[in-house]
Amino acid sequence: MDATHDPRLTSFVASANGHPDFPIQNLPLGVFSTAGGRPRGGVAIGDMILDVAPVATLLPAAARAAAEAMATDHLNALFALGATARRALRAGISALLATDSARAEQLRPHLHPASACTLHLPARIGDYTDFYAGIHHAANAGTLFRPDNPLLPNYKYVPVGYHGRASSVRASGSNVRRPKGQRKPADEAAPSFGPCRNLDYEMELGIWIGGGNALGESVPIAEAGGMIAGYGLLNDWSARDIQGWEAQPLGPFLAKNFHTSISPWIITPEALEPFRIAQPPRPEGDPRPMDYLWDEADQARGAIDLAVEVLLQTPRGGPFRLSLSNTNFLYWTPAQMVAHHTVGGCNLSPGDLLGSGTISSPSEDGFGALLEITRGGRKPATLPNGEERRFLEDGDTVIFRARAARDGAVPIGFGECRGTILPAT
Amino acid sequence: MDATHDPRLTSFVASANGHPDFPIQNLPLGVFSTAGGRPRGGVAIGDMILDVAPVATLLPAAARAAAEAMATDHLNALFALGATARRALRAGISALLATDSARAEQLRPHLHPASACTLHLPARIGDYTDFYAGIHHAANAGTLFRPDNPLLPNYKYVPVGYHGRASSVRASGSNVRRPKGQRKPADEAAPSFGPCRNLDYEMELGIWIGGGNALGESVPIAEAGGMIAGYGLLNDWSARDIQGWEAQPLGPFLAKNFHTSISPWIITPEALEPFRIAQPPRPEGDPRPMDYLWDEADQARGAIDLAVEVLLQTPRGGPFRLSLSNTNFLYWTPAQMVAHHTVGGCNLSPGDLLGSGTISSPSEDGFGALLEITRGGRKPATLPNGEERRFLEDGDTVIFRARAARDGAVPIGFGECRGTILPAT
Repeated sequence: MDATHDPRLTSFVASANGHPDFPIQNLPLGVFSTAGGRPRGGVAIGDMILDVAPVATLLPAAARAAAEAMATDHLNALFALGATARRALRAGISALLATDSARAEQLRPHLHPASACTLHLPARIGDYTDFYAGIHHAANAGTLFRPDNPLLPNYKYVPVGYHGRASSVRASGSNVRRPKGQRKPADEAAPSFGPCRNLDYEMELGIWIGGGNALGESVPIAEAGGMIAGYGLLNDWSARDIQGWEAQPLGPFLAKNFHTSISPWIITPEALEPFRIAQPPRPEGDPRPMDYLWDEADQARGAIDLAVEVLLQTPRGGPFRLSLSNTNFLYWTPAQMVAHHTVGGCNLSPGDLLGSGTISSPSEDGFGALLEITRGGRKPATLPNGEERRFLEDGDTVIFRARAARDGAVPIGFGECRGTILPAT
Repeated sequence: MDATHDPRLTSFVASANGHPDFPIQNLPLGVFSTAGGRPRGGVAIGDMILDVAPVATLLPAAARAAAEAMATDHLNALFALGATARRALRAGISALLATDSARAEQLRPHLHPASACTLHLPARIGDYTDFYAGIHHAANAGTLFRPDNPLLPNYKYVPVGYHGRASSVRASGSNVRRPKGQRKPADEAAPSFGPCRNLDYEMELGIWIGGGNALGESVPIAEAGGMIAGYGLLNDWSARDIQGWEAQPLGPFLAKNFHTSISPWIITPEALEPFRIAQPPRPEGDPRPMDYLWDEADQARGAIDLAVEVLLQTPRGGPFRLSLSNTNFLYWTPAQMVAHHTVGGCNLSPGDLLGSGTISSPSEDGFGALLEITRGGRKPATLPNGEERRFLEDGDTVIFRARAARDGAVPIGFGECRGTILPAT
């Protein structure tokens, strides 16, 4: 573990010390704007945001190009510089923000209260891919449709994924318009058109791609982790009734492409380093991953111990916790997703986004979607204030949070991914 | 029909007169480069390419902004100017290139032999979506998997589509690397990994989006056709064995994302105007499209009478014709695809690309994929030189061509979409 994780390290930005999300050990990357200002790259520190590019000259030479790349309204150029530049930037900013920093006075004009800033989508997303690596979610969803055979035969061999819509990914805080579309419940004879009646969220880990591979070339599993620039919280909003009618034989389309939310702060692999754990052993009888998905180092350190929480705020109360789970329930590591994505030659680029698939625990208190909590809407959830929910109602706000904590390390958080449902037009 | 379609119209570029693809009545848009030059926008005229931006000052004022927008290496900026600007550009270039043009000598330095030019992807593709509107293909493919029930219940209600991979779309002429991946034939007990054994093409109409809609807003069907900037020929290369194993429950992924080819010339809606026809009436008993998909004008003129041809050149012979079909076999019009894509609020942008789905005729001589011609590989096709094909072999070149011809109009063509299979690495 390097010096940037030292638990004794504190910042002269007082709100960072003990901050649940953004102590000096985190230093996530994002794009922000101040009132009337243009969007540019920043780093969260406590309740403040450091405008990075203007302080480039205060950084060691190795970190300067990375800081200058943050002058634009997206982080793609920073990502393209690779992990070495990103690590140098982290080390340099950590030193600048430390309590014993000699540069505190020079930094102050470039520290903005987060509460007065707007956070934007942190990258220009070339392509967005959604995986399905939450095995308990896959089993729960499968049970609703195929009670005797919830997991399809390919599930334990293939990191199942599909292409999503990049244009409709929005930063946390964007309101979500309830979609209209075709739906045909089993008890109706013909399909009808209208506002989605079974609107849902899906709690996922977002994975930002920082590297690239040429079309026709594969990324070996041992290098796949190095292609990842960071992580966020992703809400794969889902219109279950539209999905049920449209999705055969080619998969979800309008049921998903009306909106996807991503938390604005990119938590780097460097920040998560103390929270990497072994991929949990597969249950007895599960097949060993194929060679292109198997790497000892990835098995030993490729999973993340990250608690993920879903909260619901209704127009009448809350926020109420709906679930608490952990990313270590994912059946495939992020590196396995990258290796699989490229094994046939598909080219990834800096700024591409992956979703992990919905993260659910084996137990009900960790189910990552209302579909699972309410058994497809058949068993309404009762909220602490007495309200019931089968699916989301207009005015509901869904909030995701995540927190990594391990002995000997200062805990870090992801900030929020939130969205409020607006009525259909 | 406007003056640009006058069948008496000829060009001072002699090769254009009687040209099978690019007479003066076509004037397709693309991006080209000369040896050592940078990619920029051009118009095909016979065997030549007109470099458009340098002649902007020779055009009427209404066409100048459109011509200047073609100075870059993509046509997104031109698309964003909309249909009125695109029509003015067409009219202006038609007059400049006509036999009676007073500007012929000023144009000659900006006319380059196509044979000495490289053609590029004509736009920066934000998102790529693949539809499934070829009903005979859907029935043929369905028959292989569900003999008693080839078309799923949603097919005649929903213009079924799914998201594809934008990053791996390449202009015609790019070689196609055979992908590797997991496959599990029905007669093998466990999946294995290796080069695709059932590599196929799919003949589709490509649809370029020229307009945009805001997230959360739908495009009414009456306006949907106006969102289309033009058309091309699209090869949705498909790894059938990978697809068969991976595609449930979320659709095709690695089976499609290793490469998609598009013809480099964008045939505008203006050029196709004489070849628009009524959408063929639905068979007795088929449901009427829902209101959001129904527009009288689209039904009357929304289909395209375009003959589409697939040829195969092998290392030992050809090209041999594999099929001849027509885009009027599509069950949904391009405008219906756009209206459906946006009805839930998904935002389209200039430069987005849609595929129509594989176009097959009811009869075997018009099947748009080897999957259909060879009944899933069970009945090999015999080529005129005696070779047999179940699926594509290394070194095979697949060539698509298309031609629109109607009484009273000068026929136009789309040029080629071609790709050669390279062995897996």
